Amino acid sequence: MTNENIDEIIKEVVSRLQPKRDFEVEASGRHVHLSRADIDTLFGKGYQLTKVKDLSQPGQFACKERINLIGPKGVLKNVVILGPERKESQVEISGTDALTLGVKVPVRESGDIVGTPGILMMNGMTSLQLSKGLIIAKRHVHLTEEDAWRFKVKQGEIVQVKIDGERPLIFDDVVIRVSSKFATYMHIDYDEANACGFKKGTRGTIIKKLGNWNG
Amino acid sequence: MTNENIDEIIKEVVSRLQPKRDFEVEASGRHVHLSRADIDTLFGKGYQLTKVKDLSQPGQFACKERINLIGPKGVLKNVVILGPERKESQVEISGTDALTLGVKVPVRESGDIVGTPGILMMNGMTSLQLSKGLIIAKRHVHLTEEDAWRFKVKQGEIVQVKIDGERPLIFDDVVIRVSSKFATYMHIDYDEANACGFKKGTRGTIIKKLGNWNG
Repeated sequence: MTNENIDEIIKEVVSRLQPKRDFEVEASGRHVHLSRADIDTLFGKGYQLTKVKDLSQPGQFACKERINLIGPKGVLKNVVILGPERKESQVEISGTDALTLGVKVPVRESGDIVGTPGILMMNGMTSLQLSKGLIIAKRHVHLTEEDAWRFKVKQGEIVQVKIDGERPLIFDDVVIRVSSKFATYMHIDYDEANACGFKKGTRGTIIKKLGNWNG
Repeated sequence: MTNENIDEIIKEVVSRLQPKRDFEVEASGRHVHLSRADIDTLFGKGYQLTKVKDLSQPGQFACKERINLIGPKGVLKNVVILGPERKESQVEISGTDALTLGVKVPVRESGDIVGTPGILMMNGMTSLQLSKGLIIAKRHVHLTEEDAWRFKVKQGEIVQVKIDGERPLIFDDVVIRVSSKFATYMHIDYDEANACGFKKGTRGTIIKKLGNWNG
């Protein structure tokens, strides 16, 4: 029996012992979430955003309205606004976008915007200087409660996710987010998508990290 | 003794048993290698490229001369030319750049350009339509023969490389290139750099793949 045979047998045994922890991956382009007050400022008091497309996460949608982001070195035009309204405005861009704008932007989980930079937003000639909320989104997996149970992972757990594509890699430091309101999808940005050779239909598989193994 | 203690002990034992296989990572921006004939066409018969900066790989250098790349959807301006001249011209861009140009570009090892798309290059008003050579470079590690021996890896071997940064990940399908003419550095593109939170000084560590373990 050769080493290669043994490797194949080990792989097969491991795969049969482990639950299948795979899901579809989505690449998130740059986008903006707006608070009620900031919609009022940019679009007029009481303005209602216009849904054009439902997103994979239930209740989330892309809007017809677009805004420009203005940085010291460059501009990102026609950035999509995602609805519904949020308690606080938040702008999610990639590392490439941060270089275009000329702003140093931290990697943060959605909603964790204390101490983050702001950005100038413009709707036509109407401008709003956001004081904080510009982030590069930390890669994450949305899981339904059922899938979290099946995959034996918990809200906030840090896992690795293996991506099989033209440029296979294993994302480390991926945060698990569990909610009865979620659909099961991993979200990465376009830098990460390009780095792993992402195409529509690309799937990821959770690898539990040493020290987090409880099933 | 807690599980965490045991994990720490396992990590320490594993690290002391394995040779240290780490090296500096460099992010390669888009660039062009030109053949003698293509330099003649773009810059004039017998034109000599002007070195402005030595690169980490011995004998390789960045040139003063820049060219524009023209795609069906967009243009990449002032792309650096790297010297010395090569037998065949080759243009290395990122996945993001490929979207900008509007061309579908394969991931290839340097020099493996059969069947790749071409691209229109312009120096001022002088143009040259390359018939092939447009690639997204496959991530790779350049190793001196001494480091290849120390790291127990061979020319052409496929390994994983773990990157510890703001966005840690493990690149899979990384090709090992060994030459007495090389200096030991890993090369990734800017998409990959943004995906792993690359900064100057970021280091990578080789993880041998199951089935390639021979030391």
